[in-house]
Amino acid sequence: MTHHSPTLIALLHGADQPGLVARVSGWIFEKGGNILHADQHRDMEAGIFFQRVEWVPADKSPMPLAGAAEEFARFAVSLGMQARVLSSAQRKRIALFVSKADHCFHDLILRWKAGDLAADIVAVISNHPDLAEAAQGYGIPFHHIPVTAESKSQSEMRQLAILRDHAAELVVLARYMQVLTPGFLDQFGKPVINIHHSFLPAFAGGRPYHQAYLRGVKLIGATAHYATRDLDEGPIIHQDVVRVTHRHDVDDLVRLGRDLERLVLAQAVRWHLNGRVLAYGNKTVVFD
Amino acid sequence: MTHHSPTLIALLHGADQPGLVARVSGWIFEKGGNILHADQHRDMEAGIFFQRVEWVPADKSPMPLAGAAEEFARFAVSLGMQARVLSSAQRKRIALFVSKADHCFHDLILRWKAGDLAADIVAVISNHPDLAEAAQGYGIPFHHIPVTAESKSQSEMRQLAILRDHAAELVVLARYMQVLTPGFLDQFGKPVINIHHSFLPAFAGGRPYHQAYLRGVKLIGATAHYATRDLDEGPIIHQDVVRVTHRHDVDDLVRLGRDLERLVLAQAVRWHLNGRVLAYGNKTVVFD
Amino acid sequence: MTHHSPTLIALLHGADQPGLVARVSGWIFEKGGNILHADQHRDMEAGIFFQRVEWVPADKSPMPLAGAAEEFARFAVSLGMQARVLSSAQRKRIALFVSKADHCFHDLILRWKAGDLAADIVAVISNHPDLAEAAQGYGIPFHHIPVTAESKSQSEMRQLAILRDHAAELVVLARYMQVLTPGFLDQFGKPVINIHHSFLPAFAGGRPYHQAYLRGVKLIGATAHYATRDLDEGPIIHQDVVRVTHRHDVDDLVRLGRDLERLVLAQAVRWHLNGRVLAYGNKTVVFD
Amino acid sequence: MTHHSPTLIALLHGADQPGLVARVSGWIFEKGGNILHADQHRDMEAGIFFQRVEWVPADKSPMPLAGAAEEFARFAVSLGMQARVLSSAQRKRIALFVSKADHCFHDLILRWKAGDLAADIVAVISNHPDLAEAAQGYGIPFHHIPVTAESKSQSEMRQLAILRDHAAELVVLARYMQVLTPGFLDQFGKPVINIHHSFLPAFAGGRPYHQAYLRGVKLIGATAHYATRDLDEGPIIHQDVVRVTHRHDVDDLVRLGRDLERLVLAQAVRWHLNGRVLAYGNKTVVFD
Repeated sequence: MTHHSPTLIALLHGADQPGLVARVSGWIFEKGGNILHADQHRDMEAGIFFQRVEWVPADKSPMPLAGAAEEFARFAVSLGMQARVLSSAQRKRIALFVSKADHCFHDLILRWKAGDLAADIVAVISNHPDLAEAAQGYGIPFHHIPVTAESKSQSEMRQLAILRDHAAELVVLARYMQVLTPGFLDQFGKPVINIHHSFLPAFAGGRPYHQAYLRGVKLIGATAHYATRDLDEGPIIHQDVVRVTHRHDVDDLVRLGRDLERLVLAQAVRWHLNGRVLAYGNKTVVFD
Repeated sequence: MTHHSPTLIALLHGADQPGLVARVSGWIFEKGGNILHADQHRDMEAGIFFQRVEWVPADKSPMPLAGAAEEFARFAVSLGMQARVLSSAQRKRIALFVSKADHCFHDLILRWKAGDLAADIVAVISNHPDLAEAAQGYGIPFHHIPVTAESKSQSEMRQLAILRDHAAELVVLARYMQVLTPGFLDQFGKPVINIHHSFLPAFAGGRPYHQAYLRGVKLIGATAHYATRDLDEGPIIHQDVVRVTHRHDVDDLVRLGRDLERLVLAQAVRWHLNGRVLAYGNKTVVFD
Repeated sequence: MTHHSPTLIALLHGADQPGLVARVSGWIFEKGGNILHADQHRDMEAGIFFQRVEWVPADKSPMPLAGAAEEFARFAVSLGMQARVLSSAQRKRIALFVSKADHCFHDLILRWKAGDLAADIVAVISNHPDLAEAAQGYGIPFHHIPVTAESKSQSEMRQLAILRDHAAELVVLARYMQVLTPGFLDQFGKPVINIHHSFLPAFAGGRPYHQAYLRGVKLIGATAHYATRDLDEGPIIHQDVVRVTHRHDVDDLVRLGRDLERLVLAQAVRWHLNGRVLAYGNKTVVFD
Repeated sequence: MTHHSPTLIALLHGADQPGLVARVSGWIFEKGGNILHADQHRDMEAGIFFQRVEWVPADKSPMPLAGAAEEFARFAVSLGMQARVLSSAQRKRIALFVSKADHCFHDLILRWKAGDLAADIVAVISNHPDLAEAAQGYGIPFHHIPVTAESKSQSEMRQLAILRDHAAELVVLARYMQVLTPGFLDQFGKPVINIHHSFLPAFAGGRPYHQAYLRGVKLIGATAHYATRDLDEGPIIHQDVVRVTHRHDVDDLVRLGRDLERLVLAQAVRWHLNGRVLAYGNKTVVFD
């Protein structure tokens, strides 16, 4: 849905209690805001309330937007909820991590150039030089940081420095073929989205298309998830599959998988940027 | 999502105005109700607000439920909205219309017997005697009412009388091969759901699988919609497709289509019964 | 595709060698047969040739069909190939194994009654009495054989005796909640098709919908496979998935899974009966 | 499936007669060829036989390949069949027609650069100058030929001259927003593949996403077809759909449709280039 006024989007969650919908919508109404969308979810078993609410605040100039966001966050705390508040007027800054494969790289950049992402791709970081020229062709700074077993911690220090320099707020692993250490994730402290080339939890780990071929499955998949300390175990944002047959060899699976990976990663990044994904435990609530 | 307390579900829509979410949720909160789900939609172009809200009222006994439903409906009118209020404690009464094909017939009845429908199938009406025995095997009254060009209006009078006798609140055309007249629809005055064996608006009218075969399409579809005066033009509730190839002849399309028709019709009926479908103009909002 | 003359279907495979297509089709042509379909596959890595060929033999009476089948099998051996030859005139005899869940049970029986299966369901065997009446309503012999940890081997002896009495040629485990022992599989010596309620290899073992819920996957699946000594590891015939969201609890997954299981199992059984599935190693070639 | 030796691919069709599979495979075997794949289809109603056969000829050098192709074509004629023979060693020359939309344009070019197409994109022709720079960035000649109602026939003359200059063997209309005249199609005399942004035959003609939005369909589609004199009526090669809801406005449909259009067009072009599509009447046989 297209909106032309800048909006605020709040993602909140916490212990369920009666009247939450009324209190949140009442608060926004009192402040002169107009709610465009409000979606709730209750995890009945865990007793948790989740909400995504998007509204046009009374004063629409960008600076007051930031103030309104902070004000709402304080209100959420008063309800005993955790809240994340985004302003549609503030574009997120994305750093892409890549290796040699270029399909997700081109795909995300072309979507950005087409105006489909509420964000900017501000840097590309790679452990291989292969995509340097392509990145420069798009006008995006490219940083080649080789990674070896020995250099890993040093390389991650350099990556973190570059992320700081670019003020990156989201890292997208666009078929980056290295595992990030828990230390890296902690120090970055912001979301990292990965695309795994299988239908997790099937075929976690390396060479999933080879594993799928050997097992003789009839569908192959791709999974976009937040990267966490536990490899391939982070909260799943999006998954999809495509049908394969005995006629497809490993090369065919790789080729078919490329389209899946592009679409699944792009959808996950888009949902994240639009404030539609709320991770809790190792699961997500996606308000689509 | 399973809930164990009886709930009220309101579907309301009307001209958009600021504060609607707050006013509806505030009203429910004041009456001691606890909102389980609240979904909104705004048709920006038409300026219409749509909401589905489901809540556990303060007093959960069935009779007060009816009172609470009426009270809410009055409140909605005070907001300038139209509202339909359902109580989960009150099971809808369904009449199935069939001809000779039995796949949707068995499917809906088996789902009902499995406890998947919040309703009861109270009668089967057919223009052919073929399914009489099967209906009786399930313990459902079967009414054979032949329909010919000459007898049509008389037959419809008999159908309407039977619907009244059974206090039917929903008619499901489970591959009923006759067109209902505008007069019938007006006099029944309650929803009628039809399954059309094509991806409407493609292949409206008769023999859609033959049309699809001749055109050489690569997907065939099925469409569940509310029946209106305009044949095959009513608001679409649900659609799905299945892939076909040159190897499939018309008989194969018919066979593959049976699975599609069963699933699409069952989903549409389920959504309708759970108060998830709001028709306006020739479209629907489905709060799934 | 519907054919009206009885046909022979040969599934052959063996070490690849030049001229196999020419020799097989030449042999059939010389005998006066008319090939309707011939599909080949080569596993390039393993050097194996697979073929499904279906033809109308010169003499179409049922008895000569059996002779022609044997003659072809001898010819295949002369090529160094293994062959299985089916006659479309000879309907296979199926035994269904069930427990308490009835959705695959009704589904397969209704497809059979609708004429969609080139086979007959000749017996239902269950470790619970729940479906006795339903089986009898369909006119199918029902055998209740309780299974406990202690009685398992004795129960399997009884099951095998019943399969022999009914001359069963295929066992379909239609949500049968017991593991068959290697001894049972060896003694039966004919194909056994199982439906597993997950997208294997994800969520093998028990309670797959609970596992899927805990992991937070966005798609759930079902897998039809030949049962082998290695539980949940047999050759996969067919798989499909359906999208789920955070709004679905375990009960919803179970309900949505029922439709998946019905469709995936029915498709696998149909392909098997039409001589379209060739298992080798732990994989299948499906000539669809 | 990847093959490393150059192969010949024949697509033949004609009146069905006994022994065709044997005669074709026998002929190839006698010449020392080794069949890799052979797929047949019979249109029982129309009495037409269709075959795709792919083989490694005895002499694999490129020139003898051309000779073998001609030899096979003569053989096919002797059987009363029409044949088209392709050599995998000979890459087809593609001209892309575009207007302003760039998603199919980038998609096809990136697939080509990734080595996924057995062809070369040799020219881009557009009625708008917008994609000139992007084409040049990819190193592909770009020809801007404005088209107005008055200039149409002259513009088509210029387009045909450019196609001749580039020896183009396939035109792909990658969201080209002009209708080609029958005269153009006749004079070009080679295949033209178009992507229509709806699930044909639904929403033929202009602005299909607007039509889909107004009708309230729950799935939108895209259709790749050969362009013929009858607008939107040519043989369909491939179609796919994506689910939409009431939450999607026309802009969302356009955005979602872009992914569909890219995938459907790319698949159709790939199948065409691999000699997998046989058009007859207004339908296709796709040997996938």
